Amino acid sequence: MIKTIAVLTSGGDSPGMNAAIRSITRSAIARGIKVMGVRDGFLGLINNDVFEMERSDVSGIIVRGGTMLGSARVPGFTERAVQDLAIDTFKKNQIDAMIVIGGDGSYRGALALSKLGIKCMTIPGTIDNDIPGTEETIGFDTALNTAIEAIDKLRDTSSSHHRCSVVEVMGNRCGDLALYAGISTGAELVITPETGYDYEWTIKRLQELDQIRKKSHAIVVISEKLTDAEDLAKSISRKTSFAGRSTVLGYIQRGGSPTAKDRILATRMGDFAVTSLLDGKHAHAVGMIEGQLVSMSIEDTFKHKKKVKQDMFDLQKRLV
Amino acid sequence: MIKTIAVLTSGGDSPGMNAAIRSITRSAIARGIKVMGVRDGFLGLINNDVFEMERSDVSGIIVRGGTMLGSARVPGFTERAVQDLAIDTFKKNQIDAMIVIGGDGSYRGALALSKLGIKCMTIPGTIDNDIPGTEETIGFDTALNTAIEAIDKLRDTSSSHHRCSVVEVMGNRCGDLALYAGISTGAELVITPETGYDYEWTIKRLQELDQIRKKSHAIVVISEKLTDAEDLAKSISRKTSFAGRSTVLGYIQRGGSPTAKDRILATRMGDFAVTSLLDGKHAHAVGMIEGQLVSMSIEDTFKHKKKVKQDMFDLQKRLV
Amino acid sequence: MIKTIAVLTSGGDSPGMNAAIRSITRSAIARGIKVMGVRDGFLGLINNDVFEMERSDVSGIIVRGGTMLGSARVPGFTERAVQDLAIDTFKKNQIDAMIVIGGDGSYRGALALSKLGIKCMTIPGTIDNDIPGTEETIGFDTALNTAIEAIDKLRDTSSSHHRCSVVEVMGNRCGDLALYAGISTGAELVITPETGYDYEWTIKRLQELDQIRKKSHAIVVISEKLTDAEDLAKSISRKTSFAGRSTVLGYIQRGGSPTAKDRILATRMGDFAVTSLLDGKHAHAVGMIEGQLVSMSIEDTFKHKKKVKQDMFDLQKRLV
Amino acid sequence: MIKTIAVLTSGGDSPGMNAAIRSITRSAIARGIKVMGVRDGFLGLINNDVFEMERSDVSGIIVRGGTMLGSARVPGFTERAVQDLAIDTFKKNQIDAMIVIGGDGSYRGALALSKLGIKCMTIPGTIDNDIPGTEETIGFDTALNTAIEAIDKLRDTSSSHHRCSVVEVMGNRCGDLALYAGISTGAELVITPETGYDYEWTIKRLQELDQIRKKSHAIVVISEKLTDAEDLAKSISRKTSFAGRSTVLGYIQRGGSPTAKDRILATRMGDFAVTSLLDGKHAHAVGMIEGQLVSMSIEDTFKHKKKVKQDMFDLQKRLV
Repeated sequence: MIKTIAVLTSGGDSPGMNAAIRSITRSAIARGIKVMGVRDGFLGLINNDVFEMERSDVSGIIVRGGTMLGSARVPGFTERAVQDLAIDTFKKNQIDAMIVIGGDGSYRGALALSKLGIKCMTIPGTIDNDIPGTEETIGFDTALNTAIEAIDKLRDTSSSHHRCSVVEVMGNRCGDLALYAGISTGAELVITPETGYDYEWTIKRLQELDQIRKKSHAIVVISEKLTDAEDLAKSISRKTSFAGRSTVLGYIQRGGSPTAKDRILATRMGDFAVTSLLDGKHAHAVGMIEGQLVSMSIEDTFKHKKKVKQDMFDLQKRLV
Repeated sequence: MIKTIAVLTSGGDSPGMNAAIRSITRSAIARGIKVMGVRDGFLGLINNDVFEMERSDVSGIIVRGGTMLGSARVPGFTERAVQDLAIDTFKKNQIDAMIVIGGDGSYRGALALSKLGIKCMTIPGTIDNDIPGTEETIGFDTALNTAIEAIDKLRDTSSSHHRCSVVEVMGNRCGDLALYAGISTGAELVITPETGYDYEWTIKRLQELDQIRKKSHAIVVISEKLTDAEDLAKSISRKTSFAGRSTVLGYIQRGGSPTAKDRILATRMGDFAVTSLLDGKHAHAVGMIEGQLVSMSIEDTFKHKKKVKQDMFDLQKRLV
Repeated sequence: MIKTIAVLTSGGDSPGMNAAIRSITRSAIARGIKVMGVRDGFLGLINNDVFEMERSDVSGIIVRGGTMLGSARVPGFTERAVQDLAIDTFKKNQIDAMIVIGGDGSYRGALALSKLGIKCMTIPGTIDNDIPGTEETIGFDTALNTAIEAIDKLRDTSSSHHRCSVVEVMGNRCGDLALYAGISTGAELVITPETGYDYEWTIKRLQELDQIRKKSHAIVVISEKLTDAEDLAKSISRKTSFAGRSTVLGYIQRGGSPTAKDRILATRMGDFAVTSLLDGKHAHAVGMIEGQLVSMSIEDTFKHKKKVKQDMFDLQKRLV
Repeated sequence: MIKTIAVLTSGGDSPGMNAAIRSITRSAIARGIKVMGVRDGFLGLINNDVFEMERSDVSGIIVRGGTMLGSARVPGFTERAVQDLAIDTFKKNQIDAMIVIGGDGSYRGALALSKLGIKCMTIPGTIDNDIPGTEETIGFDTALNTAIEAIDKLRDTSSSHHRCSVVEVMGNRCGDLALYAGISTGAELVITPETGYDYEWTIKRLQELDQIRKKSHAIVVISEKLTDAEDLAKSISRKTSFAGRSTVLGYIQRGGSPTAKDRILATRMGDFAVTSLLDGKHAHAVGMIEGQLVSMSIEDTFKHKKKVKQDMFDLQKRLV
C-alpha cells in the first residue's frame, strides 16, 4: 500500500513542470497520501535532500516556468553505487513510490530504480517533444509559442529590409519545434533532423525564392546542431540578394509562464500518475496519445518510434 | 470537376480564421484551382461581393486575429429567396464549391446551400469550442490563453487584498472555456452550463473556502449567461469576508494573434478541406477527433453530442 | 538617526509596488539600516503585523505584479485613536521612519502620522496616474500596456464586423489612461473627466464617422464613472449602422508583471525615498517631474494641480 | 510655402516607426499638405521610388513593428553624385520638405540634403537609444521590454539549475539597453561600453557571488561587441560552480508591436516634425528632453554628448 510518494524533476527544465508538481501534490494529499519533494532531481535522491510538501507549498506555482524543486543532470546515476544511495533515501523517508518528471534520461534513471524495487511512474517533461510513448510533452506548446513570438518579431524587421532571417530553435533530435514553428509563421524553409540539412540544396532553394518567386524577405527555421546558423546566414548574403541574418533563440525557449495547454497537460498527467500508482502500475510512463491519457511500461516506450510527420512537412512546403 | 472554390468566414470571428483562409488559398492555387474570396460572410454571397484571391493577398495574415474577409450574421439566410441570391452569385462567378469557416449557424447555411446543389465543406471556427463533429475549434486555444492571461493578472491583485474575483468568460452553451481556464489558473470555483449555477451552493462553498480553508483570496470562473457577475460579486462581499469584484472579459476573447496551436489547426483544416473537396466530399464538415483530421457529413455532426468532461470537472475540484 | 525603516503598501495595488519594496529593502540594508515590512497597509500598523525583511525576502519579486506585503484600505485611519495604535507599533518595533507606497489616500495617512512625529516618505503607486506632485506614478505604464493589448484585440474583432467597441478603462478622476490608450490604439473617440461626457455630441460624432467618413469600424475609449458603457453601446447600435459592443476592462488593469518602465521607476523611487530620509527629509513625497526624481512636502503636492494635456487631446482628434 | 512633404525611414528599423509615419501622414493631410512616401529609405530617393500617401494607407499600422515604407542603408549617400539623384526626385515630385525617421546615419544624410537646399526634419528612430539631441528614441522602450521578457524567461530556467546566464543585448555604442534591462530584471552584473569589459574582474565578481554571496543563480547582461558571450559563459563554467550558458538576443529586439510609450512618442514626434516644418524650422532634429518635445539644429545634436548615467549604474550594483 502506498502511503508516501516522492516527486522530482530531472534533466532540462520545461514550462509546466510546476503545474505537474502541484497536481501530484494536491492529488495525492487529497487521497490521504504524503508527498516528499526531492530537490535538484536525482541529486536530491543521492543526498537525501527531501522535504515534506504541503498543499500550500504549491500555491500559485501553476503560472510559473521552471521547477520549484530544481533540477540537475546526474550522469553517474547509471552506477549501482550511486543508485544505492537513492535506495537509502527512500528507506530513510519511508517512500513507497516516486514520480519523475523529465526527459528520457530521467526515464532511464526511473527504470533503473524500478529494477531495484522502487515503484516509479514517469511523466514526459521537455520542450523538445521527443520523448517516446507520448505525442505531447509538457513544455512543448510553451516553447513553440515562445519561438513563434520571436519569429513574428523577426518577420517585422526582415520585411523592412530585403532580409533572410535564419532562426535556430531547439529540438535535440526531433524537428517538431522547427516544423510547427515554421508552419505557424509561414517560414519559407524548414530544416530538421528529419529533412536533413543539405547546404547546396538550401542555397539553391533560397535563390529560387529570391530571383524567381521574388520574395521580399524570407525566414528559414532550422533545428539546433545541424549547422552554424551564422555561417549559413553569411552564405545567404553572398549567394542571394537577401541580407542574411541569424538568430539562435536558445534558452529563452525553456522558460516563461506555461501556456494553457501545458498547464492542463501537466495537471492531468500529474493526477493520472498518482491514480496509476494507486492502481498498482509502476515502472510505467504517462503519455498522451490520440488525445487520451495512457500509460505504458517504460521499456515499451523505448520501442515507440515517433513517426515522421511527412504530411506536415509537405503542407509547409505547399503553402510557401 | 472543381476549378473554382469560394471561401468565406461567417458568424462570430475567431483567431486563426486568417490562417485557414491562407491555407485554403495557397493550397488550392498550388493545385491549379482558382479561389474567390467572399466578403462579410453570407452577406457577400447575397450581394455578389466577391473577388479573386492571389497568393500574395494572404501574405503575412497568419499572425493576425480577425478575418480579412470580414464576417456577418445573416439571420434571413434560412429564407429560400435569400438563398437563391447566393446561387446566382455562384453562377455569375462560376464557383464550383465553397468552404465556409464559422460556427454551427454557418454549418446550417452551408447545409442549406448543399441541398441546392452547391458543394460545401465547413471548417469549425469559433472560440467557444462548441461545434459538433470536432473536439477542437479554430480560435479556442487563443481565447483560452487570453482568458488565463487576464485571470493571472486578477490573481496578482486579488492576492494583494482579501478578494474574491468573479470572472465571466465566453462560451455560449459550452463550458469548455471556463473549465479549462479554471483548471489552468487554479480557480477555486468553476461554474458552467454543464455544472449548472446554484446561488446558495456557490455562496456556501465560498464561505467554506473563506472560513474553514482560510483561503487568502479566491477566483470564480463562470460561463456567460448563467448569472450577473456583478450581482454575484456583491453577494460574496455581503456573505463572506472576501471583497467581491467582478470582471466580464468580453470581446477581448475574440481577438489577438492566434496561438501556435490555432495557426496549425487552421492551416491543416484549410488544406484538408481543399483536398476533401477534390476527393469528392461535400456537405461535409472538417473536424479534429482524437488527434486526427476527419470529415463527416454536416448532418452527422448535429448528432455528435459533446460528452461532458466529468473527469476534468472532478480534477478541478480535487486540486483546490 | 535612522536605524529602522518600515515599508508598507496602501490603497489599490499597482504593478511595480514589489519592485519598490525590493529597492527600499536592499537599498536600506546596503546602508546598514533595518527594514520592517508591514502587512496589509495601515491595517498592519494598527495590528502590529510587522516582520523584519531580509535581502532574500525580495528575491525575484521585481517581476511580479501585486504587492508581497498585501494592501488594504483603512477609512478609519483619520481617527486619532486609530492613529495612536500605529504610533504604538512604531514604538514597539523601534521604527524611526516609514515609507508608504500608494495613492493619495495613503499620502493623507502618511501626513497624519508625520504630524504625530513619525518621519514619513511617500511614493506614488497607482495605475491611475492621478497623484499630485508627480507626472508619473508606479503602475501606470503597465496598466496602459494592458489596456492597449486588450484594445488591439478588440480592433481585430471589430474590423471583422462593422462594429463600434466602447471600451471603459480605469482612471478615477484622471483621464490619462483613456487618453494615452486612445492615442496608442488610434481610437476614434476618447472621453474622459477632462473632456466631459456629452451623450448627444458623442452619438453625433459617431454618426459622422459612420456616414460621412465611412469608417468600417470604430473604437471609443472612455474613463470609468462617466456613463454605463453597455447603455452607450446599445445607443450606438440604434443610432448608427455600427453594431455597438461594450467592454469594461476592469481589474485586469491592476495586475500583471510590471513593464520595464514601471520596474525602473519603482526601483529608482524606492532608493530615492531611502536616501531622502537619510538626508533628513520627511513628510515628503517622491515624484518624477520633467524626467527628474524630486521630492516635495506632502502638503505641497496637494497644491500641484495636474495640467490638462490639451495638446495631446488635440493630437488624438487630429489623427482620426 | 510647404505643400508637399516626403517621409522616409532609414537605417535599422525600430518599433514605432509606423506610428510616426501614420502621425506625419494624417497630421500633414489634416493641414492640407500632400504626403509622399519614399520606399526603402534613401534608396527610394535615389530611384524615385515614391508614392502619394492617403489617410487610409496608414490605417491600422500603429500596432505594427517594422516600417511599411521599408528601409535600407545607403553608404554611398555621402557622394555628391548620389545626392544629386535625390534632388532630382524632389524636383520631379515637387517635394518641398522631408521628414527622415532613423538613426544618426540618417541624420547625416538629412544634413547633407539640407545643405543642398532641401528642408529636412529628422526624428530619432532606433532601439539603441544612442542618438544625440534626445533622451529617448523611438523603439527603445519596446526593445527594452522584449529584452526583459526574454531575460525573465532565462531567470526561470537558470533558477531551476545552478546556472549563470550571459545575455547579450543590442546597443551599438550605448549601454542603455543593457543597463535598463539589467536593473529591470535584477541582473547580478551589467557590462556596457560605459563600464568597459574586464575579463578578470568579471570572473572575480562572479566567484564572489557564487562562493561568498551564495547566489543560487545569476544573470549577466552585456552589450554587444564587447566580448563573445559563449566564450564568457564557458569561462564561467570553468572558474565558478555556476553552469554558464549564453544567449544572444539578436534581431528579435528590433521587432514586435510597439509599446504604448513608443506609440505615443512616435505619434507626438511625427506631429511635432510637421508643425516644426510649418513653423519654418529645417535642418532640425526632433528630440525629447526632460519630458518636453524640442527641436535643435542637426549640427547641434552632434555636440550633445550623452551623459553617463552613473547613478543608475550605482543603483544596479547596490541592489544585487
